[in-house]
Amino acid sequence: MFSFVVALAISVQPQSVEETIKAIQKKGLAELGAYSMLKDLTVNVGARVSGSAGAAKSVIWVKNNLTKMGATNVSEIACMVPHWTRGTGENAVMDGTIKLSICALGGSVATPHSGIEAEVIEVHSLKESEALGDKGKGKIVFFNRPFDTNTNASGSGYGGANDQRVGGATAAAKSGAVAVLVRSMTLATDDAPHTGAMRYGEGKKIPAAALGIQSANKLTAALKRGKTKVRLVLNCKKFPDAPSANVIGEIKGSEFPNEVICMGGHLDSWDLGRGAHDDGAGVVHAMEALRLIKSLGLKPKRTIRVVAWMDEEQGGSGAKAYFEYASKASETHFAAMESDMGGFMPRTFGVSQEKLEKVRAWEPILRDFGIDRFVPGGADADNGPLKALGTTLFSLNPDGQRYFDVHHSRNDVIENVHPRELEFGAIATAALVWLLSEQGDILK
Amino acid sequence: MFSFVVALAISVQPQSVEETIKAIQKKGLAELGAYSMLKDLTVNVGARVSGSAGAAKSVIWVKNNLTKMGATNVSEIACMVPHWTRGTGENAVMDGTIKLSICALGGSVATPHSGIEAEVIEVHSLKESEALGDKGKGKIVFFNRPFDTNTNASGSGYGGANDQRVGGATAAAKSGAVAVLVRSMTLATDDAPHTGAMRYGEGKKIPAAALGIQSANKLTAALKRGKTKVRLVLNCKKFPDAPSANVIGEIKGSEFPNEVICMGGHLDSWDLGRGAHDDGAGVVHAMEALRLIKSLGLKPKRTIRVVAWMDEEQGGSGAKAYFEYASKASETHFAAMESDMGGFMPRTFGVSQEKLEKVRAWEPILRDFGIDRFVPGGADADNGPLKALGTTLFSLNPDGQRYFDVHHSRNDVIENVHPRELEFGAIATAALVWLLSEQGDILK
Repeated sequence: MFSFVVALAISVQPQSVEETIKAIQKKGLAELGAYSMLKDLTVNVGARVSGSAGAAKSVIWVKNNLTKMGATNVSEIACMVPHWTRGTGENAVMDGTIKLSICALGGSVATPHSGIEAEVIEVHSLKESEALGDKGKGKIVFFNRPFDTNTNASGSGYGGANDQRVGGATAAAKSGAVAVLVRSMTLATDDAPHTGAMRYGEGKKIPAAALGIQSANKLTAALKRGKTKVRLVLNCKKFPDAPSANVIGEIKGSEFPNEVICMGGHLDSWDLGRGAHDDGAGVVHAMEALRLIKSLGLKPKRTIRVVAWMDEEQGGSGAKAYFEYASKASETHFAAMESDMGGFMPRTFGVSQEKLEKVRAWEPILRDFGIDRFVPGGADADNGPLKALGTTLFSLNPDGQRYFDVHHSRNDVIENVHPRELEFGAIATAALVWLLSEQGDILK
Repeated sequence: MFSFVVALAISVQPQSVEETIKAIQKKGLAELGAYSMLKDLTVNVGARVSGSAGAAKSVIWVKNNLTKMGATNVSEIACMVPHWTRGTGENAVMDGTIKLSICALGGSVATPHSGIEAEVIEVHSLKESEALGDKGKGKIVFFNRPFDTNTNASGSGYGGANDQRVGGATAAAKSGAVAVLVRSMTLATDDAPHTGAMRYGEGKKIPAAALGIQSANKLTAALKRGKTKVRLVLNCKKFPDAPSANVIGEIKGSEFPNEVICMGGHLDSWDLGRGAHDDGAGVVHAMEALRLIKSLGLKPKRTIRVVAWMDEEQGGSGAKAYFEYASKASETHFAAMESDMGGFMPRTFGVSQEKLEKVRAWEPILRDFGIDRFVPGGADADNGPLKALGTTLFSLNPDGQRYFDVHHSRNDVIENVHPRELEFGAIATAALVWLLSEQGDILK
């Protein structure tokens, strides 16, 4: 009986892990399926803000595509998500005549219909804003601390600046400010404003908008010349939380069906672009990985599952719902890989520090498609909670130079995605989950 | 006396090599000088085909800029270069009505003024063309073997296809063909034709043009339906060789002035774009590296020299002239780095195999700006001849996915260069030459 099982396994999967991964790569690069899917998602489904019609449509889109490629257990994991809309007609005008390029930050309250007009005062940190005291009263506080340029841009530049976006309104409200403007979170030099989540603390909720970089530069130049007023009009609106869902689909493991390897990204996006890099790319990385494995007739030992998380951008309700699901499931979550840094050329995989040395043996296999090495990391917004279940976490780290050029802006569209770079991310994902499936015992 | 010299050196250069390289990086990322220079070169000087007015202007441009940044020994190393012009009005029409997007290959002869009209026959290799015999007589031979997609695109895809471009006309002439059309050397899917050098052997010289990918696909589809004619008009012209020059400029070494470390790229380009990635990027990588080192007041132990080679594209007369110069010089050429794979994000440095293990100690220092490791290689078209002088060769290898999208086409313009990616190449260059200058004894 045993020898028969072995013979059968050989007939289905006659190759070494290295050969299998080479076959995955060859098929991926010939077909570029990740790009076809991402084009369809971004052009035909569109933006996917939590709670929107686009997000609901995208849930069905993932389910249909996973079903079409032969995934099993294709299903939704329900969650309640924030529902906020931008509205139309938002704008800002400096000193009565000069248009500034702005967008409401996600979650902001609206201005009155006629807008808010006030003098602007510039600060460079939450601390500086909080220290304004009476000087902030009745003003629009302008947070203008730029990204540190001396970084690789894929994380620390953003991390060092985005407290202004998230917490600026709360800080400024303490000194009686009436609104905030925040320099966009980018190293780009164009004038596209970049949205993103902001949160209110206790205190008064004041409107918050991002300024395109050229507009921020115009405003700071005007302030150097003297008193400057801005009229800001935002028409955003908050609705009650709405029902939505994560989507999963999988290939059941042949030997260890109860050991699950997740891979995925988040399905929701912001509304200004089409969520191509953030994070359509992460979703199709995983979907294409599953498609390649499935269409090559490969039978993984462990269960390989796509997870398209909902609502990463506005609070992570999808990640919470998935974690609860995983906590109660009879299966164990062996590993979980998240891709949420765009569809650019892969460079490294992050992995939980304690597993770093163990997975290094795989580095030579991964180099063909851009993964130079494993680095400490692995935990991101959606796979992070699974750490509590003993799951080994991985993150795909593509080259980060271009990511914040488009992130959360109208430029996050398929035209700024390179078909082969995107596919290499999918191939790297497929290779990693295949290694985890077949040789995952090295983690133990 | 000795202690005085040491004290002086310390006062000028108080930092470790690692600190110096961090200072270079910080300054580079804040100023993005490589991009400013490349924009000026590509927009204000323009294309720089060997023997053209643009190439002559670019020689002066490099000299002026090197002088401005304080380089010494700024001078020309003369060479005689091919002089070929495309002319205007080149075009191709299929079956009397359908326009094909074409461009003459560099070095091609013209068609008669009224063009050449003939039936097209498709082949996929030089061998297949040579085997045509009488079937090729009076025909236009269409070389349509695409890039292998299953590569990282930065070398082997091109290397596996470009014999058709270089040798197609010679092979086709043997069977009596009247012209050749060659599928462009690219993985892009647009219709921009990609030029590049072709060479004639003995036999008859027949006109040779590249087809944009969409046009190549149209032509092959038409041939599948039946007999297809193309009328090809090329107005190119070959002139006698023209005088031109490489340009050099340097920072003299403080301890080993006779040990020269070269860094550079080629100044000439093709005419369709502006030679932004190929190879303006390589030239400004080196110029910016010198500018950063010079403007930080650093005093290298060995001489660090920028070399802007002329005529890489049409025969390498500049590389030959530089080699002759180097052979006769009293100085020794300690190392020579070439950058000729575009201005994208750095990934590795190629280095002569026998030095590979020796330089690995530098890898951790280089990772901050994208150099993951050293790989075997190092010899390219321009630094290659120096191997014969015992020089250790290095090549900068940026990520290659986008390079052949623009290479030799109208899309090789500044708009397709990312300022920070380009600067990281310059920083990597500066770091490498600084390590070679200060710690180069590890090569011995």
